[in-house]
Amino acid sequence: MKIQLALDRMTLSEAKSIVEEVHDYIDIIEVGTSLIKDYGKKSIQFIRSEFKDKVILADIKTCDEGEYEFKAAYEAGADIATVMGNSPIETIKICYEVSKKYKKHIMIDLMETDDSKIETIKTYEDAILFVHLPKDSENKSLIDMFQSKKQLYKDINRLAVGGGINEKIIVDIEVINPEIVVVGSLITKSKNAAYTAKRICEKLQSGR
Amino acid sequence: MKIQLALDRMTLSEAKSIVEEVHDYIDIIEVGTSLIKDYGKKSIQFIRSEFKDKVILADIKTCDEGEYEFKAAYEAGADIATVMGNSPIETIKICYEVSKKYKKHIMIDLMETDDSKIETIKTYEDAILFVHLPKDSENKSLIDMFQSKKQLYKDINRLAVGGGINEKIIVDIEVINPEIVVVGSLITKSKNAAYTAKRICEKLQSGR
Repeated sequence: MKIQLALDRMTLSEAKSIVEEVHDYIDIIEVGTSLIKDYGKKSIQFIRSEFKDKVILADIKTCDEGEYEFKAAYEAGADIATVMGNSPIETIKICYEVSKKYKKHIMIDLMETDDSKIETIKTYEDAILFVHLPKDSENKSLIDMFQSKKQLYKDINRLAVGGGINEKIIVDIEVINPEIVVVGSLITKSKNAAYTAKRICEKLQSGR
Repeated sequence: MKIQLALDRMTLSEAKSIVEEVHDYIDIIEVGTSLIKDYGKKSIQFIRSEFKDKVILADIKTCDEGEYEFKAAYEAGADIATVMGNSPIETIKICYEVSKKYKKHIMIDLMETDDSKIETIKTYEDAILFVHLPKDSENKSLIDMFQSKKQLYKDINRLAVGGGINEKIIVDIEVINPEIVVVGSLITKSKNAAYTAKRICEKLQSGR
């Protein structure tokens, strides 16, 4: 199980500091949507130049103009770029094709994506499918949501989960056993980010 | 009828030049999603500082984190910010509340939004509802799409239309009679942007 650290609502220099602190305990650095909308693709270029050894995900949340946005993200240094699962299927297809052309990865965010669309999306075998709770609905439980859609999610090849991850949920996540767990404020807002990241890392150790 | 000029896939200095050329024929300057994802909120601040007399729309296409993104857009100088209609209803509600708090406007992009959700969205009376074709599906006709959903769209209070607008469609748009027509590459890729913008402006004159 890989840990993806989501960097959001901070300056680029704060982002750099946090990654330096937790570097050894994370696998993927996520340049969050807020960093991209605040600083543009410079945010991806900056994180790429500072952390050459890490996998970088650009959470660009593409809704349209798939070719332009995916090319821009990869050329700025991202290894993985994201598209919304509730975008037009033409957009998702274009993003997938660009990911193949660049020999990079695609993550499809399943937020508010209907079940029949997810069935189609599941045919993109090597795409990473991201099941999460939106920030604006944090009162819901990830595990409850996951259990209610067990049949739909069970044969996803590359699964990522996230959204409101806390230490209590971390234990339950072993049941889901995704390829990637996305953790944000639990680490970035911790008083001791390195200690928290190390703890999460240890808790997930068995699945790594 | 107002003309909204969408600025996409260009540098900020190119954006400035084009707006200067067509300034007298447009009502709203759209800082396009590509400008925001390429340059961050600096793109909104730049256009705001250059064109103090114009209404500025930031096409931030919020999918989540409504409060953070809408505040950032308004504080950067936008008069209107956009949220995706297919986002969680909680997100749309938060964006709407932020727009009220800042005494600014909200545009809800109805791309890939199902009919029952649109019925809910229509209850936000002073929100601008944007009916358009995504860039990645330009072979479809805006008018055909509009006609097929006539019942759904007919009582929208503030309507914007756009996507693949060309001079031929402009004539048909008078039938739809929206508050705002969003025009992008027809003007920005024209060899004579001022001439094209003037022509469109004249064609829509009767509805202005």
